[in-house]
Amino acid sequence: MNLTFLGTSAGSPTAQRNVSSMLLDLRQEQHGLWLFDCGESTQMQMQKAKFSLAKLEVIFLTHLHGDHLFGLPGVLTTRSLMQNQSPLTLIAPKGIKQFIETVIEISYSWLTYSLNIIELEQDRTVFEDERFRVEAKLLKHRVPCFGYRIIEKDLLAQLDIDKLKQDNIQVGSYYNDLKKGKTITLDDGRIIRAVDYQTKIKKGKKLAILGDTIPCQASITLASDVDLLVHEATQENALEDKAIERGHSTTVHAATIAKQANAKRLIMTHISPRYSLDDNNKLVNEARSVFANTEIATDFSTFTI
Amino acid sequence: MNLTFLGTSAGSPTAQRNVSSMLLDLRQEQHGLWLFDCGESTQMQMQKAKFSLAKLEVIFLTHLHGDHLFGLPGVLTTRSLMQNQSPLTLIAPKGIKQFIETVIEISYSWLTYSLNIIELEQDRTVFEDERFRVEAKLLKHRVPCFGYRIIEKDLLAQLDIDKLKQDNIQVGSYYNDLKKGKTITLDDGRIIRAVDYQTKIKKGKKLAILGDTIPCQASITLASDVDLLVHEATQENALEDKAIERGHSTTVHAATIAKQANAKRLIMTHISPRYSLDDNNKLVNEARSVFANTEIATDFSTFTI
Repeated sequence: MNLTFLGTSAGSPTAQRNVSSMLLDLRQEQHGLWLFDCGESTQMQMQKAKFSLAKLEVIFLTHLHGDHLFGLPGVLTTRSLMQNQSPLTLIAPKGIKQFIETVIEISYSWLTYSLNIIELEQDRTVFEDERFRVEAKLLKHRVPCFGYRIIEKDLLAQLDIDKLKQDNIQVGSYYNDLKKGKTITLDDGRIIRAVDYQTKIKKGKKLAILGDTIPCQASITLASDVDLLVHEATQENALEDKAIERGHSTTVHAATIAKQANAKRLIMTHISPRYSLDDNNKLVNEARSVFANTEIATDFSTFTI
Repeated sequence: MNLTFLGTSAGSPTAQRNVSSMLLDLRQEQHGLWLFDCGESTQMQMQKAKFSLAKLEVIFLTHLHGDHLFGLPGVLTTRSLMQNQSPLTLIAPKGIKQFIETVIEISYSWLTYSLNIIELEQDRTVFEDERFRVEAKLLKHRVPCFGYRIIEKDLLAQLDIDKLKQDNIQVGSYYNDLKKGKTITLDDGRIIRAVDYQTKIKKGKKLAILGDTIPCQASITLASDVDLLVHEATQENALEDKAIERGHSTTVHAATIAKQANAKRLIMTHISPRYSLDDNNKLVNEARSVFANTEIATDFSTFTI
């Protein structure tokens, strides 16, 4: 799976960074595109990065501040203008329904697809199928703001059909027994152990994508042992008081959470407009003094998990 | 005055054209920036073109379709984040108040300046001061959509103080009489005709900025004798039926309105995403066959009026 940042600025856009959104590409995992946050111009950024609105499957919003929300009307309605019919799920804090209804009504818009809106008010599992589970937890910000833990389930052992064929074994009526892991006796007398014909278990990946927050226990829980943690780092370490006062984190906060959670890798985003790309090294180095495997996101940077 | 196009696409953005908005720069006329329509990413386009949100004075929306509206939340709230305090007037069809209120409430936003909202339901004068008057008229679209006629008032004759000084004329108590155009007799016996000491009248400019519409009488009235007409041209001439069916105009429609209104110059905008910039020549030539002084807008093109 790949995670592409579409916007990495905090609060308002700069010439170098658009406002918050990132796209988790799960097409290799038999899913679609999952969008996390949807700041203004997200549809333009998707277009630039060659991601199709048609492939959008789930939109998760961490919270309803404008820099995470104001691109949503454009994403939803352009997806309709293009006559897309595949259903879309929208998971966001309470209030999103009223927002969408007002926007659609006042702008005389319509949707060509079914939009399943899940309004969050408390910690809960927000998505689950045979492949993924997503947990949402309330963080600590000025307004209700959630973090998401995305758990790819381990791919359980499958029968290795190629190996069976190679050994000239016609599984036929034994298929279900073998799949269940039983030892079987073939018609020709051969005894076959299922374990010899099972593919290896593929461990699923885990990642945490957190919204705006000061350091808190929920962040550590969500990020526990993840392969990748996305954490906001609005300010540099020297501006810790300012960060906390506005409900935000610093570079060192983000790194500390990554360390406490035993995450494997940290990507910082949601960078204050006061910083230009020339400040990236300084910001990353602050975090690396606490958690070595840290990177800073820029618009259109992609990370493979 | 200068008119800069920030977005020239119809319905949805393309790689080459953003959705509708344009900026009338009246800073040389002792006014601020007047924004006409506010599609998504307008604040980003303003940033790219180096226009400050602080200088925004009036926002006019022609109608409430998303491609003319969805940039408004970002413009209004980023202007607040930057602590601007100068008041702003917003003129738009009915419904805009509910939209703004819901957006502000749901996104936990606030405004640092007073926002004077004028909701339009019928033809009326929407702005008037000693320098400008703006008239709004209902056009013919699928939803209520207005066109605007911007009239710069003629600068009336002023006394030429420099010339009076040069001729050693102490106007003193005669000032008001001279200003009214009277002939006066100075204490030293000289007879002074006001007309010899008045500056020339400066004719004001007129322009018409129309929203989405099929050809209609209101467009001709609004564009009558203007120095510059901005008219939508969503489709080429061959797609007239499609244009009309969706409430839009073709290149030839726009040119015909310009001709019937006796406009001096036509700028076409709101170009369907089906056309690339490579089609500009074809589209312009269709219009020029009817009205010679036609141009087609591209993002960031600026026209001096």
